[in-house]
Amino acid sequence: MEEQKIKTPSDSLVVMNELVLPNDTNMLHNLMGGRMLHWMDIAAAICAQKHCNSIAVTASVDNVSFKHAIKLGDVITINAKVTRAFNTSVEVKLEVWAQNIPSGTRVKSNEAYYTFVAVDNTGKVKPVQPIQPETEEEIKLYDGALRRRQLRLILSGKMSPDEATELKALFLPEKAD
Amino acid sequence: MEEQKIKTPSDSLVVMNELVLPNDTNMLHNLMGGRMLHWMDIAAAICAQKHCNSIAVTASVDNVSFKHAIKLGDVITINAKVTRAFNTSVEVKLEVWAQNIPSGTRVKSNEAYYTFVAVDNTGKVKPVQPIQPETEEEIKLYDGALRRRQLRLILSGKMSPDEATELKALFLPEKAD
Amino acid sequence: MEEQKIKTPSDSLVVMNELVLPNDTNMLHNLMGGRMLHWMDIAAAICAQKHCNSIAVTASVDNVSFKHAIKLGDVITINAKVTRAFNTSVEVKLEVWAQNIPSGTRVKSNEAYYTFVAVDNTGKVKPVQPIQPETEEEIKLYDGALRRRQLRLILSGKMSPDEATELKALFLPEKAD
Amino acid sequence: MEEQKIKTPSDSLVVMNELVLPNDTNMLHNLMGGRMLHWMDIAAAICAQKHCNSIAVTASVDNVSFKHAIKLGDVITINAKVTRAFNTSVEVKLEVWAQNIPSGTRVKSNEAYYTFVAVDNTGKVKPVQPIQPETEEEIKLYDGALRRRQLRLILSGKMSPDEATELKALFLPEKAD
Amino acid sequence: MEEQKIKTPSDSLVVMNELVLPNDTNMLHNLMGGRMLHWMDIAAAICAQKHCNSIAVTASVDNVSFKHAIKLGDVITINAKVTRAFNTSVEVKLEVWAQNIPSGTRVKSNEAYYTFVAVDNTGKVKPVQPIQPETEEEIKLYDGALRRRQLRLILSGKMSPDEATELKALFLPEKAD
Amino acid sequence: MEEQKIKTPSDSLVVMNELVLPNDTNMLHNLMGGRMLHWMDIAAAICAQKHCNSIAVTASVDNVSFKHAIKLGDVITINAKVTRAFNTSVEVKLEVWAQNIPSGTRVKSNEAYYTFVAVDNTGKVKPVQPIQPETEEEIKLYDGALRRRQLRLILSGKMSPDEATELKALFLPEKAD
Repeated sequence: MEEQKIKTPSDSLVVMNELVLPNDTNMLHNLMGGRMLHWMDIAAAICAQKHCNSIAVTASVDNVSFKHAIKLGDVITINAKVTRAFNTSVEVKLEVWAQNIPSGTRVKSNEAYYTFVAVDNTGKVKPVQPIQPETEEEIKLYDGALRRRQLRLILSGKMSPDEATELKALFLPEKAD
Repeated sequence: MEEQKIKTPSDSLVVMNELVLPNDTNMLHNLMGGRMLHWMDIAAAICAQKHCNSIAVTASVDNVSFKHAIKLGDVITINAKVTRAFNTSVEVKLEVWAQNIPSGTRVKSNEAYYTFVAVDNTGKVKPVQPIQPETEEEIKLYDGALRRRQLRLILSGKMSPDEATELKALFLPEKAD
Repeated sequence: MEEQKIKTPSDSLVVMNELVLPNDTNMLHNLMGGRMLHWMDIAAAICAQKHCNSIAVTASVDNVSFKHAIKLGDVITINAKVTRAFNTSVEVKLEVWAQNIPSGTRVKSNEAYYTFVAVDNTGKVKPVQPIQPETEEEIKLYDGALRRRQLRLILSGKMSPDEATELKALFLPEKAD
Repeated sequence: MEEQKIKTPSDSLVVMNELVLPNDTNMLHNLMGGRMLHWMDIAAAICAQKHCNSIAVTASVDNVSFKHAIKLGDVITINAKVTRAFNTSVEVKLEVWAQNIPSGTRVKSNEAYYTFVAVDNTGKVKPVQPIQPETEEEIKLYDGALRRRQLRLILSGKMSPDEATELKALFLPEKAD
Repeated sequence: MEEQKIKTPSDSLVVMNELVLPNDTNMLHNLMGGRMLHWMDIAAAICAQKHCNSIAVTASVDNVSFKHAIKLGDVITINAKVTRAFNTSVEVKLEVWAQNIPSGTRVKSNEAYYTFVAVDNTGKVKPVQPIQPETEEEIKLYDGALRRRQLRLILSGKMSPDEATELKALFLPEKAD
Repeated sequence: MEEQKIKTPSDSLVVMNELVLPNDTNMLHNLMGGRMLHWMDIAAAICAQKHCNSIAVTASVDNVSFKHAIKLGDVITINAKVTRAFNTSVEVKLEVWAQNIPSGTRVKSNEAYYTFVAVDNTGKVKPVQPIQPETEEEIKLYDGALRRRQLRLILSGKMSPDEATELKALFLPEKAD
């Protein structure tokens, strides 16, 4: 359909807004972390599918931390963009803001990386087309994706720390010289 | 907080993406109309609240028609933008697209106008600040809002057709000469 | 199964009661408009299917206005009845009441018209049998259905105001003499 | 508000229609029993509250049996009516039908008795006004309510079988002579 | 797979924990009875399926009484265990506790018996393997299952009280001598 | 209430079973990752609250990877146990299994670590009592918790890799000599 054009991260951008409703909250009327992870997964799935032109299923979620209490009635905005495409998977970066309408405040709530595997209608893994980062920020994220991937492989026991050459740059910056 | 600046329709823009899940569909695996109206209401509420800086409650929904069957797994994109602010209410225009990922098709599914009333934390109606349309399209929507308002008032029995001077331009263009 | 008998609006009557639960409400603990539209769509779909003896899918919703705040814990009663059958579609009238149990109050909350198209198990449009109004009220609704249909066609851009001969009776009653 | 008039079972009648949606079904696309019990509880709660003019909370559910598989897309109709009022509680009889629209079949799916206790806004038990059965059927249900109550008390260990004079008429009809 | 070994009630044990969220509660912020019955049905279905190694559908629920108000935020613990296998069905005993975390209290909330019928992938009833009770408690429940079954058959009109020899021991203990 | 006794990881054990229902699945009828993360968060929250005797809110989720497609109708079993208590937070380890009833297969689906902060009824952070690991496995998890905590702090930008003395043992085992 769009055979020639190389896709960019912007082509995959997904913006999702959600209103925090009672059933999303705990006894303190604050958004529950699991509900947020659920919304982020849906936004990331749509984003990954836009790049892959196919169904995409969650392969992993990187470390996510929750810094602020988000209140009942707040508006959540989730931005999702593919950072890099691998052979059969993509990494998606999510940024989440929480906005309190009456007070007009808006805080960056979370950042996270989800990875998705592209599959066909029978659930079989299929190849993913490459992605071309454009902005400086996108190029930085594209480059960092290798390092995050090594950390994922180590944490899930599929790579030994020794092999993670990219990652060592993160943990041992002084080794560089 | 942002006292000086006059707000524009773009300031109120809300983009919402939803994935059509099994419980949103009927026996034909197509999205149910009521579920769509529910999503549109949430998007419009967030949009109205962004302009009003306060809670906003649904006052009316204009005629909505459903032209295409939307399938399980499709991605819905809803754009909501305030077209005009009245004394204590705003009109929000919604545009809805449905995207089928594997086939790459994307169709305009619906357009609709919702109106919301601004209320304070006790539910009492409160004034809404004015809005300044910028683009040609926004100015056209701003102007048309009066006409749509008259139709709403007639249809809900609060205005007699005779008083609807703006509306006559729509229904009786030949009267213009 | 019931081949001979001509169906009446009463044959299609559907009564639906719902209890307003926390997740149906906004920050003021009032029912959200979109949730109401969702319930009304389900009631209307059941009603349309009873008349059509087939699956029926939402084709349009006419202007709906929300006049009263409905509280958490209120009981919603929706009455749905087919007003008129067209070639492949029906118009359903909905009346909605909200009842507050402890105070014993009961208010008419909304009225609305939804239209549905009859489809077979593959989603193909199919003919709808005629309907025979019985009471004076039903006959009035049956007659008005033509006028509401013209308004729908104009609002969705499928008819020019000039052709809407039935509708002019509504907007220009003085033209009648 | 309606101080003088003695209420009848008909005054408490609640009719509820529900459409069986995907999330209500199991792997065979049949309605799950627990979802049905949930809907019946809501219908019965509304019914009890109409009689009591107060909040009413579930006290017990009598034996319910599920005889027919109910399919995705079927329409459930639940009728709920108070059969008898005790000091601070009521018994509600529920009758449930399942209708398959395309085939036109309609089967009685379940019957059940739920009991509810009337409480005020702080959750404290409060008295319930008496009820006056009118039809022959209502009088029969009114009389049987004592017997069903004894069975409930025995099954929950609050009465010994010996004391259940009413119930013996059910289990030992030959003892009557 | 596990052809030889005779299964025991412990093999079917299912423990389910649920957090009471806003949408599970009524206006008093107490858990609604119907929601509890829904959770119990899911726990019992999983339990029955573990014993039957097949899909199992709800056949009946015995009398359940609700003694304590369970609050928003409480933790519900449901234990489900098969008590006895019949030809094509099993009886499951459920025990439910409600725990209030901050106060540290934990109360037994309910006990109930659900029965399930084993079916194959086409919904056809299929035989169930026998069960071997081990502990004194399990043997007592195994023996009592016959009596409860007779009561179910009588209450659903499938057995006359005269035939219920097992049950008479319950209702007429004085007959024992 | 239980002042003297030092709590153990076993005291916090929570077992949660869930049935994969249609709305939990994607177009391939497989469980969506976000829904799983939501369930895991609820199980972990209950577990953390059992140890802390107070409300506990999600602070972070460590890397989670999804290895197997989990099908509609599968039974999910989640085990959650506190591994270590810090000043005002706890780390919870989750293990997830997916069981396919008809085929009798059961696979380890995921492992994850969630951390929770203890708060009082006003949302203010409060101290957490210590925990005493008992088994060899529990002691190993207790010791590893420090290392995982350093990784979390580095990944969320609160600690520089240089300070992470515990973590270096993981990434640079050769440095040990």
